[in-house]
Amino acid sequence: MFTDEYFMKMAFQEAELALEKDEVPIGCVIVSNNRVIAKSHNLTETLNDVTAHAEMQAITSGANYLGGKYLQKCTMYVTLEPCVMCAGALSWSQITKVVIGARDEQRGFINKALSLHPKTEVVTGIMENECSQIVKDFFKNKR
Amino acid sequence: MFTDEYFMKMAFQEAELALEKDEVPIGCVIVSNNRVIAKSHNLTETLNDVTAHAEMQAITSGANYLGGKYLQKCTMYVTLEPCVMCAGALSWSQITKVVIGARDEQRGFINKALSLHPKTEVVTGIMENECSQIVKDFFKNKR
Repeated sequence: MFTDEYFMKMAFQEAELALEKDEVPIGCVIVSNNRVIAKSHNLTETLNDVTAHAEMQAITSGANYLGGKYLQKCTMYVTLEPCVMCAGALSWSQITKVVIGARDEQRGFINKALSLHPKTEVVTGIMENECSQIVKDFFKNKR
Repeated sequence: MFTDEYFMKMAFQEAELALEKDEVPIGCVIVSNNRVIAKSHNLTETLNDVTAHAEMQAITSGANYLGGKYLQKCTMYVTLEPCVMCAGALSWSQITKVVIGARDEQRGFINKALSLHPKTEVVTGIMENECSQIVKDFFKNKR
């Protein structure tokens, strides 16, 4: 039951919430022991804050839930590959695993040759099509 | 009067406030038209939040002051070279200029071959010795 697809679907629902607010539709959840301890979606426009990416909010609220700043034994499910800022934050968090929906070749951290914490496992391509399409459709409608 | 040293001194005072709280002593201010619109210091331990670097807080509060998410025509003065996370955030903010006290060869963004926004000017080495020494002394006392 608790597959990567199961939790990515929840991250995708967060992306849909972002879309309803006319935000770039990216969502994420953080899971610890098969329990969702944080969920969030991009709010950069709503909050007028370039730092309000889904991942940043989830890292802060996950740590708050755990009562410690490190996200060890946690997995983040995020619909789009994290940018440099979010990859840096994930690295500081020492999170155990990051599961990515769609790649972001241009803005994502992977092509910048950045790595997360040495112990962090990275998985890509879960619900890739849906996660990619929702962002593409968003920008198409903007033009 | 409004030299780089003038504003870096204010960033350094923020670093001293961090030190008083037993935080890694890093401080910053954001200046717009020779006016300080945000000041902050590292609060990662106090807030139990790896994202609570001085720069991240200042970017959020500067944008809040300006009522828009971009920090165009703004300069950040920061006592230590920003990490990957903070460099990513500065890049999104499109800030005009970043003035750095001391380099951070290990954790800083410059050696990672990351660049900020193409229009952002970067200056290093303002009050370098003081900005470097306060961090070195902090870690020496920790050992």
